[in-house]
Amino acid sequence: MEVSFRNVGGVDLPWMVEPLRYVLESEGKRMRPALTLLAGKFYRYNPEQMIPLATAVELFHTATLVQDDAIDKSAVRRSKPTVNKLWGEAIAVLLGDYLFAKAAELVCSTGNLRVMSIFAQTLMHISSGQLRQYMSAYDWRLDRQEYYQQIESKTAWLFFVAAQSGALMGGAPEEEAEAFRTYGRNLGMAFQIVDDILDFIGDEQELGKPVGSDLIQGTLTLPAILLMEQHPDENIIKEIFEKKGDKAGVERVIEMIRNSSIVEECYQIAADFCAQACLALDGMPDNACRKSLFDLADYVIERHK
Amino acid sequence: MEVSFRNVGGVDLPWMVEPLRYVLESEGKRMRPALTLLAGKFYRYNPEQMIPLATAVELFHTATLVQDDAIDKSAVRRSKPTVNKLWGEAIAVLLGDYLFAKAAELVCSTGNLRVMSIFAQTLMHISSGQLRQYMSAYDWRLDRQEYYQQIESKTAWLFFVAAQSGALMGGAPEEEAEAFRTYGRNLGMAFQIVDDILDFIGDEQELGKPVGSDLIQGTLTLPAILLMEQHPDENIIKEIFEKKGDKAGVERVIEMIRNSSIVEECYQIAADFCAQACLALDGMPDNACRKSLFDLADYVIERHK
Repeated sequence: MEVSFRNVGGVDLPWMVEPLRYVLESEGKRMRPALTLLAGKFYRYNPEQMIPLATAVELFHTATLVQDDAIDKSAVRRSKPTVNKLWGEAIAVLLGDYLFAKAAELVCSTGNLRVMSIFAQTLMHISSGQLRQYMSAYDWRLDRQEYYQQIESKTAWLFFVAAQSGALMGGAPEEEAEAFRTYGRNLGMAFQIVDDILDFIGDEQELGKPVGSDLIQGTLTLPAILLMEQHPDENIIKEIFEKKGDKAGVERVIEMIRNSSIVEECYQIAADFCAQACLALDGMPDNACRKSLFDLADYVIERHK
Repeated sequence: MEVSFRNVGGVDLPWMVEPLRYVLESEGKRMRPALTLLAGKFYRYNPEQMIPLATAVELFHTATLVQDDAIDKSAVRRSKPTVNKLWGEAIAVLLGDYLFAKAAELVCSTGNLRVMSIFAQTLMHISSGQLRQYMSAYDWRLDRQEYYQQIESKTAWLFFVAAQSGALMGGAPEEEAEAFRTYGRNLGMAFQIVDDILDFIGDEQELGKPVGSDLIQGTLTLPAILLMEQHPDENIIKEIFEKKGDKAGVERVIEMIRNSSIVEECYQIAADFCAQACLALDGMPDNACRKSLFDLADYVIERHK
């Protein structure tokens, strides 16, 4: 389905075309809408509902990226300048709002009240989770449990909404929708953990952004938390955060993490989440869609960007 | 109804309490929810739907203010420091997203699909209108017609949504909902024109913000457009905008406008919109609510802040 941004309620919006084309043509992985469509395929697959729903999921995700980059003042995403870099922060924030609204409108067009309510709650959850992360920026006293809560809000919620809403839209019974929800949540947790690993060990070219970005921005992630657990006497993260992202310190932490067992441990934790994800689908029919969802779990671990 | 922000989906959000209390306790005029409730009173007034709807209208409006201040980097609103001034721009943008989402959730709770869809379109319209305004900042070649289009998106849409959705929620027949829509749209146009007049002639103490803010930020409004119409040979606005809001120039324009017939002309245009608003309700029952809506139209013209 081609989404028309040229008009809303009959009014032409030519000034929106350029920034919208720019964000929508960037090469995302489109994982979240894939979850929606694959979950939907287990049930009554009505493309007139499923395609707008999957489109809404991706637009929703795009909206969060565009606004995140604006408020983080990030210059590069997927090896391209960000919207805020090209057009300024105000345009990026407003474009994000527009994309949230377009997503909401697409969800409304499906006529499914339950799914609409889930989407509204998702934006509440994601924005409040991000708020919490901003309020605790440069706070080194974050433990694993709090980290898991943060990435659940930030990432896993949209994954489970993507999968669960696809199933619900197709008419899944409640306990089966719950299985897709569990699958999506665990896949999302693994996805974010791998993202956080790649921020330490990835290739800048492939990632399309500098390594160590999280520490520089005061965001504590799993590899750094494990490093602190392993070195309780010497708190190098605290030192970095007190200097608001000291670059030499960040490079030292990257080296320490790369030369330790931490990367392997983090991958093991991510793999455990993926295993939980696949386990949730155990009782579902053994079809091509289930196979694709299992493959997606492998991909989440194996990806390099 | 007290809106609980302490939890969403069972998760406590204690870090949200302080900024939320701050924005919700600020003294707004609460005009938009008044429109919703008054329009709803003409029909089946079910408080379990009307109160969440009116709350959603006000939260939606609050969300736009919080984000506008963040992207304009405004320091003061209603004589108090803005959210971005106190907590930073990132928090303000995210708090705005949260308020949009909370508004959407409240609208979802009414179960009225039509009204939900209207709300989604409203955010699309407002954000795209704001985007257009940002993209044309410091452009002095804006005529009256374009100005009317801008304020329709920026302000009048939410007024008509407030009135129309109250009527629709109560079960108004389509042509009567249309009357409330016309009332709301015209009232909103008048409201914004008076806002734009006050930006030139208001009292800084009463306004709670400096006069001339619009010109300094590169926003062309009706008084300045009329000034250019009256002085086609000497384009002082162009000079100000080329210097990105030259303060001495702005003060000169304020003086020129105050000492001309422009203020009176602008008030006449606003009064004409109010008359159109009231005319739209001509066929509605002559009850206390209609009287209040007429009084509101007088207030829009007479207010000083």
